[in-house]
Amino acid sequence: MSQQKLILDGARVAQEIKDQLAERVKALTAKGIVPCLATILAGDDPASATYVRMKGNACRKLGMESRRIELPKETTTEQLIAAIRELNEDPAVHGILLQHPVPSQINERAAFEAIDIRKDVDGVTTLGFAQNAFGFAAYPSCTPAAIIAILDYYRIPIEGKHAVVVGRSPILGKPVSLMLLNRNATVTVCHSRTRGLEQAVGLGDIVVAAVGKPSFIQGAWLKEGAVVLDAGYNEGNVGDVDYESCLAKASAITPVPGGVGPVTIAMLLKHTVEAAERAAQ
Amino acid sequence: MSQQKLILDGARVAQEIKDQLAERVKALTAKGIVPCLATILAGDDPASATYVRMKGNACRKLGMESRRIELPKETTTEQLIAAIRELNEDPAVHGILLQHPVPSQINERAAFEAIDIRKDVDGVTTLGFAQNAFGFAAYPSCTPAAIIAILDYYRIPIEGKHAVVVGRSPILGKPVSLMLLNRNATVTVCHSRTRGLEQAVGLGDIVVAAVGKPSFIQGAWLKEGAVVLDAGYNEGNVGDVDYESCLAKASAITPVPGGVGPVTIAMLLKHTVEAAERAAQ
Repeated sequence: MSQQKLILDGARVAQEIKDQLAERVKALTAKGIVPCLATILAGDDPASATYVRMKGNACRKLGMESRRIELPKETTTEQLIAAIRELNEDPAVHGILLQHPVPSQINERAAFEAIDIRKDVDGVTTLGFAQNAFGFAAYPSCTPAAIIAILDYYRIPIEGKHAVVVGRSPILGKPVSLMLLNRNATVTVCHSRTRGLEQAVGLGDIVVAAVGKPSFIQGAWLKEGAVVLDAGYNEGNVGDVDYESCLAKASAITPVPGGVGPVTIAMLLKHTVEAAERAAQ
Repeated sequence: MSQQKLILDGARVAQEIKDQLAERVKALTAKGIVPCLATILAGDDPASATYVRMKGNACRKLGMESRRIELPKETTTEQLIAAIRELNEDPAVHGILLQHPVPSQINERAAFEAIDIRKDVDGVTTLGFAQNAFGFAAYPSCTPAAIIAILDYYRIPIEGKHAVVVGRSPILGKPVSLMLLNRNATVTVCHSRTRGLEQAVGLGDIVVAAVGKPSFIQGAWLKEGAVVLDAGYNEGNVGDVDYESCLAKASAITPVPGGVGPVTIAMLLKHTVEAAERAAQ
């Protein structure tokens, strides 16, 4: 194999972001403001519980506060919204993260919408989404922001490249497509109803997998030398990308774990610190 | 030429929409509510003045009211927003259309944002945009909605097709891309920084031209049998599509004039009637 393979090391990207944040957290704390992220977990999905715990731990390591709201799995939409409203009104809370998926009886969109835009550090409100689509969001969705941050860290050009996004969810596929578009990529969005998915993926200089199917994207589908970003997180720490076959064809690839995941958490911390800085002004 | 060419007749589509609306306008009027669209024209751009006049005339023909606000070209953002707020608060006004482009000293985004979501019949607010992106907008942007309406009128399938959108403006390229995506097309968005535009356009079973350059899209770029929707309106009534060469290659095409334009106005009327119906409830 003559070609150099670049493993896009998310832990390293995340560490650089967190090192820069540590200074800002110190400066805020000196002014008596400790940036605080509130996480809300409804139900007892073990994976969700793990994510929430990781986010809380990441806050504390950086000298930030975290507040953990846990609600039973029978929680109604109204109860969840009431909990969100309480956090909206609490000046000690700077960012609110509602861990998804929520239990099926809850209207997830209504719950997201209840988050104050100033505390929407995960970019889940419609207003946050649209501001992101137009390129002036305070806090873009964290996973899409992480994908862009990884490309930027490794100085992988986006402008003029053909980016193929597999997946179209409101919190991942759609916002990352718009962010890549705003960075002047030509963007193709594929999904479950796409015909000729293999050919479509093969168009991509940059391929973002955001489909939620373990090891789905095959190396044989890729353009030689593609840059592959795997935003998937499936049971057993498996991404949406068939890693070995994609590694063979790609010029650069994020592993799972240790790729997009850690940077997503770093972006969440960054947005929370920024929200605290804005609140302090 | 053995292949049948379908000229997508926007006037016909618009007429059907307006015929259906006429009944609804009558029903509202019988209840003492006359649907009213307020148009705001800032400055003296002759093309904009023509569009505004056409929209007003279309309202009157349907038994609706129209109110025309004209502001001098020196209007400030604050003055424009004050005019919008007045219309927001006026219960006799059901829809507000701010004709764009606005004079360069005005912050167009701030002005759009001032429009009450309940009266945003042109889908220009960030909230309207995001609701459209997520597939639950009250009033999607009119030109994107017109493009979908034309495809539906002629029963041209969208699901599973590859749609290529050339252009990425917040009021046209981006929303139409998301609407096509929500209708299960695979969507590629191209723009001024796209490399290999001709090849990208050649992917499209459906091609939407929303680029603002007269006769820009060439027939030679098209896939044989593509469906071409020309959302351009350039000086001299010329679209963004080189009509003759594209007609030769396409299976269906919108002319300019008489294609997307009349349907856009019909969608604006439709959204205004719907806003009046909601206000009446």
